Amino acid sequence: MASPTAPVVIIGGDAAGMSAASKARREDPSLPVIVFEQGPDISYAACGMPYWFEGLVQSDEMLRALHLEDARRKRGIDVRIHHRVTAIHPEAHTVEVQDLERDRTFIQPYSKLLIATGASPVVPPIPGLDLPGVFTLRTLEDGRRIHRYLESRRPRRGVIIGAGYIGLEMAEAFRSRGMETWVLELLPQILPQMDPDLLAPVVDHLVEQGVHLHTSTRVTGVRQANGALQVVALQEDGRSLTVAADMVLVSTGIRPNSRLAAEAGLALTVANAIQVDERMRTSAPDIYAAGDCVAYRHRVLDREVWIPLAPSANKSGRVAGENMAGGHAIFPGILGTAVVKVFDYSLAVTGLTEGQAQEHAERFAGGVAASTITAPSKPAYYPGAQPVHVKVVIERATGRILGAQLVSRSDVSKRADIFATAITAGMTVAEFGLLDLTYAPPFAPVYDPVLVAANVAARHVQPVPG
Amino acid sequence: MASPTAPVVIIGGDAAGMSAASKARREDPSLPVIVFEQGPDISYAACGMPYWFEGLVQSDEMLRALHLEDARRKRGIDVRIHHRVTAIHPEAHTVEVQDLERDRTFIQPYSKLLIATGASPVVPPIPGLDLPGVFTLRTLEDGRRIHRYLESRRPRRGVIIGAGYIGLEMAEAFRSRGMETWVLELLPQILPQMDPDLLAPVVDHLVEQGVHLHTSTRVTGVRQANGALQVVALQEDGRSLTVAADMVLVSTGIRPNSRLAAEAGLALTVANAIQVDERMRTSAPDIYAAGDCVAYRHRVLDREVWIPLAPSANKSGRVAGENMAGGHAIFPGILGTAVVKVFDYSLAVTGLTEGQAQEHAERFAGGVAASTITAPSKPAYYPGAQPVHVKVVIERATGRILGAQLVSRSDVSKRADIFATAITAGMTVAEFGLLDLTYAPPFAPVYDPVLVAANVAARHVQPVPG
Repeated sequence: MASPTAPVVIIGGDAAGMSAASKARREDPSLPVIVFEQGPDISYAACGMPYWFEGLVQSDEMLRALHLEDARRKRGIDVRIHHRVTAIHPEAHTVEVQDLERDRTFIQPYSKLLIATGASPVVPPIPGLDLPGVFTLRTLEDGRRIHRYLESRRPRRGVIIGAGYIGLEMAEAFRSRGMETWVLELLPQILPQMDPDLLAPVVDHLVEQGVHLHTSTRVTGVRQANGALQVVALQEDGRSLTVAADMVLVSTGIRPNSRLAAEAGLALTVANAIQVDERMRTSAPDIYAAGDCVAYRHRVLDREVWIPLAPSANKSGRVAGENMAGGHAIFPGILGTAVVKVFDYSLAVTGLTEGQAQEHAERFAGGVAASTITAPSKPAYYPGAQPVHVKVVIERATGRILGAQLVSRSDVSKRADIFATAITAGMTVAEFGLLDLTYAPPFAPVYDPVLVAANVAARHVQPVPG
Repeated sequence: MASPTAPVVIIGGDAAGMSAASKARREDPSLPVIVFEQGPDISYAACGMPYWFEGLVQSDEMLRALHLEDARRKRGIDVRIHHRVTAIHPEAHTVEVQDLERDRTFIQPYSKLLIATGASPVVPPIPGLDLPGVFTLRTLEDGRRIHRYLESRRPRRGVIIGAGYIGLEMAEAFRSRGMETWVLELLPQILPQMDPDLLAPVVDHLVEQGVHLHTSTRVTGVRQANGALQVVALQEDGRSLTVAADMVLVSTGIRPNSRLAAEAGLALTVANAIQVDERMRTSAPDIYAAGDCVAYRHRVLDREVWIPLAPSANKSGRVAGENMAGGHAIFPGILGTAVVKVFDYSLAVTGLTEGQAQEHAERFAGGVAASTITAPSKPAYYPGAQPVHVKVVIERATGRILGAQLVSRSDVSKRADIFATAITAGMTVAEFGLLDLTYAPPFAPVYDPVLVAANVAARHVQPVPG
């Protein structure tokens, strides 16, 4: 059983783990907290790596959110890097730890345990993905490998397998380095997190930026030939595509690192992510989980989803940390809100896409309706005004907003956040259309595109007679 | 009494009036709608004029939101410019109209009437403000006079009396034209819509941009001397200040154009603005009012305030138009949300300032608390990150957000809108801190400044025991 004097133990020293450790120590400065991190790095901004490759960020050191010595000295967290937890014993309240540097193993008791093991790339079973010059990008170590390769080999041709957030950010990084760049995507569309109808201008823009984009294209193998790599793929029409490359990035998705939890008998859920309650407690007493390894409640669907993103990792870690220190914090769930920069465009999504909402149409009164508008980011007369495409998905009978997607050459991130806030509050498009938002010509038209979108969506509301 | 066949009549052809006319015609295309506008212009973007003077906008024609011929032909609105309504007869359901071009007067019956007479500059009783070279800026005609003067006289020295939104936007316009620029403000601070503690960086910035800013300075007179103007003012320390100028702008505030309504016996309220209900109905049957001449309900204070701004003029006009066409629309009120660009800075406010909230502290459980944070607009490692100053005002016992103010060299408009949405929904800082907002390095840090502000404000919540 748990020794009350045993420390809080945290497995994983990135966003969720270090957020939890820091919050627990702030809540109770007398609480001993140990973090075991198997790699050499803690708490880094993985999302910043494409901009390091692009040259906008000067070094990987700048991507550290919290330095090891600060974590130890200023926050009093006993962080141990190069330590891998190999087993959890919930009954005994212990973990088995492998010290990778000294090559020894020991047992560590815990009073409370947090599993913050994150997620790892899924490498599809395609021959040749183990060849030199083929990379995945997840950890800072992955990033250093890629950066070293880019700097030492100066590859001229890059192939990216997968057109999700990372694939497209890396396409921009490759192009900014002057590389010939291919993006090969299995699905018929880029960015599967969004409805395809909004993406046409971004696809055009990728082509305009010199990216060779091939959707509905299945990579069948990578091989070495003439001192370079060859990526072989099968296109939708049955034709084969062979691309010579100096470098290949595999960005086909990730999966939760939930093996430890599963082996300890903890309940998993959707996508094999760890199941937690709103206090971030797993199915085992005194064991919490947070970050990319867990499933969160979707605030619109009111069911578990696995959408691993940095903001929820930070927040859920913080909630877990507060609770491990004796608090009663609640993590209310997510909307899957995200933004990505694709060259000059920004794309954002929050809540449900039309496709996702339609999958669950029976949960919504009168079903689902969606509409899309295009309106300028600023008054048309003001320099720099850009069209903003806004799609709003609603519950048809009530007009409650279920989701929004935005695409523009202007920054759509905060406009998406306005929707995220309204969705969280359960607002209807009628209520949203009367929000008192900022207006001044350098920033927005008198009817912001988000208001235009809500007003147009309001025309699709059809109250159910009764 | 009203003739059911009499037209809808609208007094005033700017934002509220033309929004109402357009909406009424959309709701009921058979409805005859007459708009009487005393000036030569309808529906123009007054807020864009400083950028026309600055040269960012090429002509006043670009500031027209709706052209006269489009209003008439496409929307079927009988717009009559150069027509001044001189009296309203609520019992008879008629208005007296003066045709300024033909110099004749006639009686126009109405079925429903909308008063959308807007607001006018308050010119303080200071000697010399009627001299040539002294201007106010409200209508497009005012703007043309200023533009002509700027282009023909090429003034080298400009004095602006009043440091509100318009005064500061005009200071930027003057400086961009290379003019020596003075701003003289009676109050001890610029921008009285905001708490003074946030404004220090903007005051520094104004000085850095070469603006001679004098607060706590009372202009006592303007006179002609040596072919130029001289502005004489009294400073706080009792010293006199005399500034030679080629041009003076008086931007000391506006007042509602409510004389017609008052003379017709309609109820006025705060600041002599016209009183309306949530359907934009005045105290007289079949008479509506909307736009800058009316008081709106403040959504946080739940009382009438007079904060005349373009977005609420448009929206309240639209609501009035729908209702005049037989609809049942409601205008739920305002938050006084506003943003202003001051050279490289943007400043935004929504809801109550700390000062305003303290004035009404008895209305809030446990009183009022406020806190201010500074956090980067993007991750510190990403190029272009700027400090964002965010002040949040809360109801102390519950943490409900009452207001927010933001100041940064980055665009704070949409971050203010996130708060406006949350305030409308009655969110607490605890709820706000867990919003699922966008994150990507080019756009925002993983904890956006608005979330940092909410999390810090949450520390000031003190539940009332019981």
